Amino acid sequence: MTDVVDRRFEAVKIDVNCDMGESFGIYRLGEDEKIIGYITSANIACGFHGGDPAVMEKTVRLAGLHNVAVGAHPGYPDLIGFGRRNIETFPGEIRNYVLYQIGATAAFTRAAGLELQHVKLHGALYNHAAQNERAAAEIIEAVKSYDPDLCIFAPAGSMFVAMARAAGLRVAQEAFADRAYTGDGRLAPRKLRGAVIHDPRKVRERVLKLVKTGIVVSMEGDDIQLDADSLCVHGDTPGAWEIAKTIKEALDGAGIRVAAVGRR
Amino acid sequence: MTDVVDRRFEAVKIDVNCDMGESFGIYRLGEDEKIIGYITSANIACGFHGGDPAVMEKTVRLAGLHNVAVGAHPGYPDLIGFGRRNIETFPGEIRNYVLYQIGATAAFTRAAGLELQHVKLHGALYNHAAQNERAAAEIIEAVKSYDPDLCIFAPAGSMFVAMARAAGLRVAQEAFADRAYTGDGRLAPRKLRGAVIHDPRKVRERVLKLVKTGIVVSMEGDDIQLDADSLCVHGDTPGAWEIAKTIKEALDGAGIRVAAVGRR
Amino acid sequence: MTDVVDRRFEAVKIDVNCDMGESFGIYRLGEDEKIIGYITSANIACGFHGGDPAVMEKTVRLAGLHNVAVGAHPGYPDLIGFGRRNIETFPGEIRNYVLYQIGATAAFTRAAGLELQHVKLHGALYNHAAQNERAAAEIIEAVKSYDPDLCIFAPAGSMFVAMARAAGLRVAQEAFADRAYTGDGRLAPRKLRGAVIHDPRKVRERVLKLVKTGIVVSMEGDDIQLDADSLCVHGDTPGAWEIAKTIKEALDGAGIRVAAVGRR
Amino acid sequence: MTDVVDRRFEAVKIDVNCDMGESFGIYRLGEDEKIIGYITSANIACGFHGGDPAVMEKTVRLAGLHNVAVGAHPGYPDLIGFGRRNIETFPGEIRNYVLYQIGATAAFTRAAGLELQHVKLHGALYNHAAQNERAAAEIIEAVKSYDPDLCIFAPAGSMFVAMARAAGLRVAQEAFADRAYTGDGRLAPRKLRGAVIHDPRKVRERVLKLVKTGIVVSMEGDDIQLDADSLCVHGDTPGAWEIAKTIKEALDGAGIRVAAVGRR
Repeated sequence: MTDVVDRRFEAVKIDVNCDMGESFGIYRLGEDEKIIGYITSANIACGFHGGDPAVMEKTVRLAGLHNVAVGAHPGYPDLIGFGRRNIETFPGEIRNYVLYQIGATAAFTRAAGLELQHVKLHGALYNHAAQNERAAAEIIEAVKSYDPDLCIFAPAGSMFVAMARAAGLRVAQEAFADRAYTGDGRLAPRKLRGAVIHDPRKVRERVLKLVKTGIVVSMEGDDIQLDADSLCVHGDTPGAWEIAKTIKEALDGAGIRVAAVGRR
Repeated sequence: MTDVVDRRFEAVKIDVNCDMGESFGIYRLGEDEKIIGYITSANIACGFHGGDPAVMEKTVRLAGLHNVAVGAHPGYPDLIGFGRRNIETFPGEIRNYVLYQIGATAAFTRAAGLELQHVKLHGALYNHAAQNERAAAEIIEAVKSYDPDLCIFAPAGSMFVAMARAAGLRVAQEAFADRAYTGDGRLAPRKLRGAVIHDPRKVRERVLKLVKTGIVVSMEGDDIQLDADSLCVHGDTPGAWEIAKTIKEALDGAGIRVAAVGRR
Repeated sequence: MTDVVDRRFEAVKIDVNCDMGESFGIYRLGEDEKIIGYITSANIACGFHGGDPAVMEKTVRLAGLHNVAVGAHPGYPDLIGFGRRNIETFPGEIRNYVLYQIGATAAFTRAAGLELQHVKLHGALYNHAAQNERAAAEIIEAVKSYDPDLCIFAPAGSMFVAMARAAGLRVAQEAFADRAYTGDGRLAPRKLRGAVIHDPRKVRERVLKLVKTGIVVSMEGDDIQLDADSLCVHGDTPGAWEIAKTIKEALDGAGIRVAAVGRR
Repeated sequence: MTDVVDRRFEAVKIDVNCDMGESFGIYRLGEDEKIIGYITSANIACGFHGGDPAVMEKTVRLAGLHNVAVGAHPGYPDLIGFGRRNIETFPGEIRNYVLYQIGATAAFTRAAGLELQHVKLHGALYNHAAQNERAAAEIIEAVKSYDPDLCIFAPAGSMFVAMARAAGLRVAQEAFADRAYTGDGRLAPRKLRGAVIHDPRKVRERVLKLVKTGIVVSMEGDDIQLDADSLCVHGDTPGAWEIAKTIKEALDGAGIRVAAVGRR
């Protein structure tokens, strides 16, 4: 049970988030216009691993039009590697990278008359923060000093979740609808056979089980507990919007409330 | 007479501003620590033409420690040219560049418990905005949509000043203490002999005349009217801090109040 | 008549060139694998406006496999604008930008056991060099000082062609197969109705007339003389490879020899 | 004994190398003009961690004027971190980064009528290649495929030296004149007390002992064998040129021939 969704007192409710605005200049990435109709929270790339000011402006506007909540999606300053490569950092660097990107994104939400809802890290920085205490602490400090009412999205069950909560921040634990988990509750590495689930029927089944019971079946066949406040949908693979649609329709069909996690 | 300083009703008051935080990574530029004691408004480079997240964090903190007001100093995305080269832009690009950079800077003021006071453009973008209506309009839109209480710094007497005021924004007209003016109230191009004034005695004399009477003597020897709310001090030339010191001491000695322009 | 193709003494021969390797990191652009079979010269983006080291390596290898000659395709350092925006430069900057990019591209041809055939400028730099004497002179100096046997691709009939020849460089005059020309032999601006020709039959007709007779019909309906050594095919529009195929088949069908311009 | 300097048959000879051209745009770094008179090989930054086309052109010209041999000094694409932070790379990336940078540098040597002598890696990439077999192999492949007569500069005694030689490349083993070594022949980390030697008398003594006898005294006081073909002088610390002068004068005074390692 999390402090965001308490299944005892509330009707079952879930957020669906997706990375957006990862195009850059002339380069197009993702199917933002198609996916936006099926999600409730958009993670906006901030110009370091992807995104640029024009793309950010357009994407925030798109989210606003569809009543989708907006978050910053900060990554390493590594456009050539799309933020997917780990970069050694010196103390304080991650804090400052994250602050800078949150602020840049918030400029576009302010200009659009919206409020920033959350922060979700990107790629190698997302993975690094889930495992590295110094990185997690710097990110938490950045978010808290910018706006303590922002919600942090983090991998369900990770050390980062515990640290952010201990620091008084709201956390949305996230789970992946189209990815398999290992027995210890971590994402199965993409290179493993079966790590990415493509069959819409299977995705649908897993999503409903997870949302209703808090259980996913691991690759090894065991039940594992996963308290998910938000489901992550991938946007950068062709046809991703169909997975998003499948998930949204499954949740709607089951009478589950799909809504953004909201600010404090 | 401006809406910021009304010389009839107020004691004479002037702001002194300087570009700061233009270092990048390992590269050092300017003498921020030396100059900070003599100014009242700091224009913080935002990472496009100079500055990086670590430099911004440090510079905002430095300004806070010295009670110096902080502004964003957005430029073209041109680190290799230090924002001094004009770049062709398509409609909307300047607006989005400026918004992004204001937001990124404001992240550091928020985290430091400060408020952003102003926006001053850098280099080629500063010059472009003073002359080009589309650029000026996009910048005004960016500032207004982000925070209508921000003050815009602009060349005294320029079209940009008039446009920003017409849009309801506060404007601080700025004059240059160590630069000569032509008869039409514009800065004399640097390449002209005598365009930059190095003699501290002359700088001192010009500053006092300007602040007390609103008059500078042009290169041709004529009196020209210049309503200045802020004096710009250059920070990126060696010894710049001594000019800053000269000006501050001249103003203090003459009983003129040196203070930041403030927010609305 | 040009020094590359003399129609009196040689069988009619034409080169077909296309911009390639303009992807960057995770971002894909163009349909290089589909187009490569229909062209004879590939202009490789060099990392300034597009392309990165991995993309360059892969694209040079692709060209080598298809016996397509390789050239450097230097642009302004403006990834966010894809090199399509003019950037003010100070004397010498263009020379150094072009030298740097030629060398970087030549590294990949050398490593692949190939020789660099040509240099073709990209986007705003291509247009600027055709009209600006200083820019043209700097580019010519860069090419000549690097390798005087390189061929420069330039708009047929432009001042740049004349200047490069006067400097002793080989020039391939290029014409655009799918673009309309104005009466003075310039490309009709894209925004004009009819400026881009989409109908394969029309493209085919124009190409054959141009190659056989050196004549294109202008938008106004007049015959204009255009000595073309190379036809430029666009690669960054969807379906571009079909235009390339149409052109190649038209030329083959008419018994025209389609071959790279070659080095001196 | 190395294949470059065989102390039995040749008069004692040593190369002195220094990183150069690490300025970027308006940002100045190092004292290239002062140091150039005391060295024989210049490692030119290639635009990834520092340097830009204008700086490269100027620095290559400076080296040429002083008969100093020129090498490429490739680093990670990390200007903000000055190439001093390790970056995760996927297979082939290091090879392509190095190839690109060698080619870009060679463009300026060609244009200046000079030949590229060597390749020396920068910062985190230098350290990584000394310890990581995959990185070393990719760099060796890049150098060999570009020009098998280039000399690779590598830390004396490192695995990288052995691998480069096994691949048939010439290697100059380098030692640091102003840095202490640990008992296993590695550089003592900078953070250790005594790791950097500032006393000119001590530097002078160590240099002569090393060049004449191939021995350095470790931090622990033991003699360690170090076959050095080149001494590295640091250029980016204030006063570095005085250390360079001290070394040059010590070598000259002892009748040791100071000369570039040369190409094959």
